[in-house]
Amino acid sequence: MALALRLLLAFLVIGSCIAADNIDLWPMPQSVSHGTQKLYIKKDITMSMVGSTYSDEKSILKDAFQRMVDLITLNHVVDGINPSSSVLTCVNIVVHTPEDELSFGADESYNLTVPTTGDPLYAQIEAQTVFGALQALQTFGQLCYFDFTSRLIELNSAPWIITDRPRFPYRGLLIDTARHYLPVKIIKGVIDAMAYSKLNVLHWHIVDEQSFPIEIPSYPKLWNGSYSYSERYTMSDAIDIVRYAEKRGVNVLAEIDVPGHARSWGVGYPSLWPSESCREPLDVSKNFTFEVIDGILSGDFSKIFKFKFVHLGGDEVNTNAYRDFVLRSQKIAISHGYDIINWYPLFDNFARFQEETFNSFGDKLDPKTVVHNWYLLTFYLIYDMGKLTVSNFAHKLIGLEDVAPKVVAAGHRCIVSNQDKWYLDHLDASWEGFYMNEPLKGINDTKQQQLVIGGEVCMWGEEIDASDIQQTIWPRAAAAAEAEFTSNLVIYGSMKFVCHSQILICHAKECMVALPSV
Amino acid sequence: MALALRLLLAFLVIGSCIAADNIDLWPMPQSVSHGTQKLYIKKDITMSMVGSTYSDEKSILKDAFQRMVDLITLNHVVDGINPSSSVLTCVNIVVHTPEDELSFGADESYNLTVPTTGDPLYAQIEAQTVFGALQALQTFGQLCYFDFTSRLIELNSAPWIITDRPRFPYRGLLIDTARHYLPVKIIKGVIDAMAYSKLNVLHWHIVDEQSFPIEIPSYPKLWNGSYSYSERYTMSDAIDIVRYAEKRGVNVLAEIDVPGHARSWGVGYPSLWPSESCREPLDVSKNFTFEVIDGILSGDFSKIFKFKFVHLGGDEVNTNAYRDFVLRSQKIAISHGYDIINWYPLFDNFARFQEETFNSFGDKLDPKTVVHNWYLLTFYLIYDMGKLTVSNFAHKLIGLEDVAPKVVAAGHRCIVSNQDKWYLDHLDASWEGFYMNEPLKGINDTKQQQLVIGGEVCMWGEEIDASDIQQTIWPRAAAAAEAEFTSNLVIYGSMKFVCHSQILICHAKECMVALPSV
Repeated sequence: MALALRLLLAFLVIGSCIAADNIDLWPMPQSVSHGTQKLYIKKDITMSMVGSTYSDEKSILKDAFQRMVDLITLNHVVDGINPSSSVLTCVNIVVHTPEDELSFGADESYNLTVPTTGDPLYAQIEAQTVFGALQALQTFGQLCYFDFTSRLIELNSAPWIITDRPRFPYRGLLIDTARHYLPVKIIKGVIDAMAYSKLNVLHWHIVDEQSFPIEIPSYPKLWNGSYSYSERYTMSDAIDIVRYAEKRGVNVLAEIDVPGHARSWGVGYPSLWPSESCREPLDVSKNFTFEVIDGILSGDFSKIFKFKFVHLGGDEVNTNAYRDFVLRSQKIAISHGYDIINWYPLFDNFARFQEETFNSFGDKLDPKTVVHNWYLLTFYLIYDMGKLTVSNFAHKLIGLEDVAPKVVAAGHRCIVSNQDKWYLDHLDASWEGFYMNEPLKGINDTKQQQLVIGGEVCMWGEEIDASDIQQTIWPRAAAAAEAEFTSNLVIYGSMKFVCHSQILICHAKECMVALPSV
Repeated sequence: MALALRLLLAFLVIGSCIAADNIDLWPMPQSVSHGTQKLYIKKDITMSMVGSTYSDEKSILKDAFQRMVDLITLNHVVDGINPSSSVLTCVNIVVHTPEDELSFGADESYNLTVPTTGDPLYAQIEAQTVFGALQALQTFGQLCYFDFTSRLIELNSAPWIITDRPRFPYRGLLIDTARHYLPVKIIKGVIDAMAYSKLNVLHWHIVDEQSFPIEIPSYPKLWNGSYSYSERYTMSDAIDIVRYAEKRGVNVLAEIDVPGHARSWGVGYPSLWPSESCREPLDVSKNFTFEVIDGILSGDFSKIFKFKFVHLGGDEVNTNAYRDFVLRSQKIAISHGYDIINWYPLFDNFARFQEETFNSFGDKLDPKTVVHNWYLLTFYLIYDMGKLTVSNFAHKLIGLEDVAPKVVAAGHRCIVSNQDKWYLDHLDASWEGFYMNEPLKGINDTKQQQLVIGGEVCMWGEEIDASDIQQTIWPRAAAAAEAEFTSNLVIYGSMKFVCHSQILICHAKECMVALPSV
């Protein structure tokens, strides 16, 4: 649906639709109905799994339940007296499949019902997988509030019947630990916040030209390119991050951005540089370069990063051998079991990185390639024109087209990250723009629509660090999260984001973030 | 010692004194000696209390030890193999007194020794009180680092012999929950960070004209003046904060700023306003006003805030009845067992709040009054001149004198918070200024020096909220903390702060803060 039409509908429906109904859920589930009765959450509310096929051996569900309880009781001492009736004593979770390995495309659908009668009175969650049940627990937690009169956690507007499933299987957020190192604890905080918004892919842009913070055991000098002795991640740290994310239903997509963004690689291995005076891109003429990439992907990454995809970057390089490099490094990744994601703009009118564009060799790409669309052009202009906001200017100047329709028409899968709308480092990109960015814009064929596996908002690290990464990500990333999660977005409209900002604020506060008013 | 001389000495000693010795401790202890040997911290290092009179019934020490272990192992997976020798297996803590109630002037001195021989090899802490032992554990934790080669926590430069005690009994930090509400979790994070820097008084400026966020059971409509339904603290929340702080050796000083900063009080009780059109100051002609103050201090505050002092504000009001009001409200506080702290500038050349100044009625104050010096004058100029930095201008303009010497000469105790140096909301106030601000400046008599009970840095809340309070407090507050804790400050000098910034960064990261480079 065209953006203009969506905006129009959004404004037309205000006051008459669900948006006016003050349902404080974010992202809005696919289907919601509710009543008017108040319930009280029992102080020692329990979880049961009666009817589940899933055994929770890894304690994914039990831990998630405890986190939900901790979250709703975090900021106030709950010291009221439970009344004798209308007390919700338990959440029963029925998971229909035993699997507990998170994988791309895992079924995240769920049903959540909160009745007003029953003895004992309990909420019921039903999901195909444990990862659907995690999403249901996020939704349940959002229904619960501390009440300053009863001093209890309450749940209003029961009974509730909610059914939900994500619109896209890939709902990503990029973090960048090369431009500023982020302590492990900070990364975990970002993962927590992603789970609140039901984002499910942490795209970890690990290394770049500025620093190489991660340990690569097969090439142990690579992390000599870290900023300092302590700004590094061991392999065990990376495993810790991946496990932490998986327990929250978040996949970790590892990226090594080659060959263009790799100057830091040569600090430990100078022969990866074409010469002492030319340190970028990687020397694509040497076998050693491919040996190192092979070592990273086989010996090290594939033991840690079990996600279906690996991201090989591939942007912003101008070398005649570029095409050969991309295709050869893709083959290496495929040989280690990965599907590949690469950055691709559509075209580059300024011909700076002409070789990189999808237009120039899209037909040569392996069908396992996922095209990550980011619009080189505006980036180019920003580089040349300083801090001037040029997104719109660029659009007008050359009539920039969307990449996604061309990519899916060619049969490739696609992730949308158009920088004018979904780059979080563009501080002038408004939440309305994040909310209204439509990944399927211009794609009408149902089969082609399915090739758009999702979208990703990008928190590039040049201008942020541990002190402000959360405040810069939220609430705008949450606006995109609803766009990616909720298919009937249009009936809510942009005003809902305002109505619901309290939730975002509430959740973000838990991860030590206060949000700008929207 | 004059500021100029201290700065001069500071620069003279660089390169030759302890500052060049790279001792990564902050605040620097009073006495430190060390060797050159590396030790390894056993992965399951334990705590013992052999020889202690103190029983740790409240688990103050055990919890502090666990926090210390969590802190030093927070950001990396410790998965190395303990070597067979040089492994520190235990910290033995000897506390000589059984008391576990935190009070003003509690003995915080400690000795810490880390030997290089012994079987088992253990560190020894000796302290008069459990609160001295807490300080020792902070110091011990700062000696420990994750090593990327051994994958263990290591402790360098052993053996260590450290003796330490604070220079001032009152080392404060003000937070302001009236201008921006701060969630309980955020306040707890600030308390954690205070403990890292050995600050020991959280001055909680709870209410002000903008909002009244705290519950007062005896006057239950007072918190109608909160910003919103959810931006409130229950009494139980306040108790939770006080207990959390006390377990970390931090006292909580409660402030109600009367009569001038109290417009929010009248939202619930309009009769506290002089009239509907004049909502400030409190109506000092009504008995009801004093009944409310009495209710707050007796029925509610004195059950929660057990610190010796209560802060009654008293600044920025211009009423003829001001003097009577201050003296009467002081009497109420004293009747409930409190000593009183009030804000007092020295004088006000612009005659806006002439009545408030110490000069005008300092001789009438109860001897239990502590004078909290903050310089009205520069504040006045800033209000009238917008964001212009006027501290220096004001000094030059009228030759502003220090208040503290006059206050202690009159026999009153004093807390130093001169806003040009120690107001954290003055973003242009540099860390060097924080570091070099000398609370005893101009006071040469030993007895008079003892009347300066300490200093306080002030994080006023107009321009900060939960998203940036930590980043605005640190590292500058830590510079003041060393000035307040370390008596032989002059031999370290300003460069040491640079040398030690890594510690600050390291510690601040634990509370999710990255610091600006210094």
